[in-house]
Amino acid sequence: MSIETPIQAVSGLDSTPITTEEIFASHEGGKLSVACSMPLDSKRDLSIAYTPGVAQVSRAIAENPDMHATHTWASRLVAVVSDGTAVLGLGNIGAAASLPVMEGKSALFKNFGGLDSIPLVLDTTDVDEIIETLVRLRPSFGAVNLEDISAPRCFELEERLIEALDCPVMHDDQHGTAVVVLAALTNAAKVVGKDFAGMRAVVSGAGAAGIAVAEILINAGLGDVLLLDSRGIIHRNRDDLNSIKAKYAAKTNKDDLMGGTREALEGADVFIGVSSAKVDVDHLAGMNEGAIIFALSNPDPEVMPDTAREYAAVVATGRSDFPNQINNVLAFPGIFRGALDAGARRITPEMKIAAATAIASLVGEDELDSEYIVPSPLDPRVAGAVASAVAKASQA
Amino acid sequence: MSIETPIQAVSGLDSTPITTEEIFASHEGGKLSVACSMPLDSKRDLSIAYTPGVAQVSRAIAENPDMHATHTWASRLVAVVSDGTAVLGLGNIGAAASLPVMEGKSALFKNFGGLDSIPLVLDTTDVDEIIETLVRLRPSFGAVNLEDISAPRCFELEERLIEALDCPVMHDDQHGTAVVVLAALTNAAKVVGKDFAGMRAVVSGAGAAGIAVAEILINAGLGDVLLLDSRGIIHRNRDDLNSIKAKYAAKTNKDDLMGGTREALEGADVFIGVSSAKVDVDHLAGMNEGAIIFALSNPDPEVMPDTAREYAAVVATGRSDFPNQINNVLAFPGIFRGALDAGARRITPEMKIAAATAIASLVGEDELDSEYIVPSPLDPRVAGAVASAVAKASQA
Repeated sequence: MSIETPIQAVSGLDSTPITTEEIFASHEGGKLSVACSMPLDSKRDLSIAYTPGVAQVSRAIAENPDMHATHTWASRLVAVVSDGTAVLGLGNIGAAASLPVMEGKSALFKNFGGLDSIPLVLDTTDVDEIIETLVRLRPSFGAVNLEDISAPRCFELEERLIEALDCPVMHDDQHGTAVVVLAALTNAAKVVGKDFAGMRAVVSGAGAAGIAVAEILINAGLGDVLLLDSRGIIHRNRDDLNSIKAKYAAKTNKDDLMGGTREALEGADVFIGVSSAKVDVDHLAGMNEGAIIFALSNPDPEVMPDTAREYAAVVATGRSDFPNQINNVLAFPGIFRGALDAGARRITPEMKIAAATAIASLVGEDELDSEYIVPSPLDPRVAGAVASAVAKASQA
Repeated sequence: MSIETPIQAVSGLDSTPITTEEIFASHEGGKLSVACSMPLDSKRDLSIAYTPGVAQVSRAIAENPDMHATHTWASRLVAVVSDGTAVLGLGNIGAAASLPVMEGKSALFKNFGGLDSIPLVLDTTDVDEIIETLVRLRPSFGAVNLEDISAPRCFELEERLIEALDCPVMHDDQHGTAVVVLAALTNAAKVVGKDFAGMRAVVSGAGAAGIAVAEILINAGLGDVLLLDSRGIIHRNRDDLNSIKAKYAAKTNKDDLMGGTREALEGADVFIGVSSAKVDVDHLAGMNEGAIIFALSNPDPEVMPDTAREYAAVVATGRSDFPNQINNVLAFPGIFRGALDAGARRITPEMKIAAATAIASLVGEDELDSEYIVPSPLDPRVAGAVASAVAKASQA
């Protein structure tokens, strides 16, 4: 990371080791609290916030439904929704155990995006039931951040929920990751002096993140993308693909390449790891000159940065202890903030690309180098820049 | 109200008129906000509150489900749930329009009970669907305050939800009102020097509040209760009763009295109005010496206090601008706080009576008079006293 970034000062205490005791102590009683934004100290206050005053506001909303957006908190409230089926790297640990992650997410929404947010964890993994539940709760919130929901269910769930709700819906494990990858790759391409349209990327992992990364890279005009699952390269002739992989078999792999990681990486410009599968250094050796490696599995990257640097000009991970941290927090607070600021009903592909461009643009031409391709997750400029870009893209 | 109560000082500004503009300005953007209870200023903070630290907490909960109660906010979070079918005096105005009331309720939970709370307003009025939705959301909260749900649906909903969820569930329009009425009546009986077991009360209105008031007065040992609906006294021989009224026809009206308000009030000791039906002063004239009148409809009492005082020794209303305000806020914050403090799975009749006794006890023997039978809604001692009493009763 460039020493010019202002974040260094803030993270001055980062070197103190974090103990398990400290982590559990910090989580005691949970991490969130709800407060009232007006005083409640007198009978007069009560008569305004509650009866009889509040009746005027409720009556006004009943007569003019648009006032629900201006006179309740719901229209700017993000529901962080999970069924606990794909929590961090822990897998299907259930809704109750996923809650600390969702509380953390709500905390990040507030801290970085200035948005209120509540975790809603669901004791069902049935896609129909999750949609039905959120449709019934619709007047309670203004946007839905889906989180830690397993693939391939997450694709159907997100797609159908976007249709069912007239508000922004985004599965962050998909699109938050994809947006930051696109931002990082935009700047990495500049570092290695390659044209975006001329590059071929290999995405290892065809789950939530992998599919969304492939999609955004295609939408952003990358030359070609190869998707790898546990059986190798995804191509049109495979008969073992679920519907989402089959869809991307048609959208990726222009040359119908077959084989495994070795074949995929031969002559590739970019490797993006979003599965826990380790990558063989022999295979990395087949990549083109000026290769770019994003090894994003957390906490164990597909290849450790020291090794990756032997084969690549630019290396990024998901970890905070190496340069170039690809962290969703760069994207989701600003994306939701921008969508809500603009009153957008959907988060479109254009809005996601605008978010990536905004993130990439915060690294100045003079700062950009192989160890500084994305801003720090704590860079206070990011969420505002992303929100503005997303709001503008939504109105375009 | 007794001039000794400390509340007078706090409400010194109450005389400034509240304008419609002020009410709407105070509700702009809603009344609630969510905050993170730990700092998020450094990478180190992020590593504790979010990844990778939070994974340890989630894994621990997956292995030991009891830690969901200690290491998330859910176990002490009250969901304030409404379908918008009986909002204040406004009727069925829908979920979206009910939200300002629910936000206010959440604000009161925090302010008086120190409990976090989120409003969940439901775009369905189907009892099965409301139950199903809350069962699915169960890992997200620790208690349910049902609010502004129309009768008789509210009775079935509460009863079935108590069975379906292993956490405190209470419909406040029923039991909050009933608890405060019992507290007030306990002290009013002392003022008029009557024995509780010797009194007969007439409850005008057999909706949510009326049924619950009748129930708690019977449970607390009142001599007899007559319930009045729009067709008159509820008795065993009526064939036009819904199932809940039929149930209470068997539990009230020991002498099988028939007729209307006049017949009900003839020789009655207590009138409790919880419908909007005005009461005829000729009928009030038939009440016993030392009568007690609680005219609780808001903002228009069944009989105005000045008039009621001609026929009764003690008069109370739901309004803050007359003495003896019967206000649910005296009950629900402490009831839920006590139930959650004690880890209670249900709010039992004994806990409700304990809450009423605690509220009544806060009016000292030397302070008690016909214009001071309940503490002020702003009396800071109330919620703590109620919570302690409820927790104790739950453990008994």
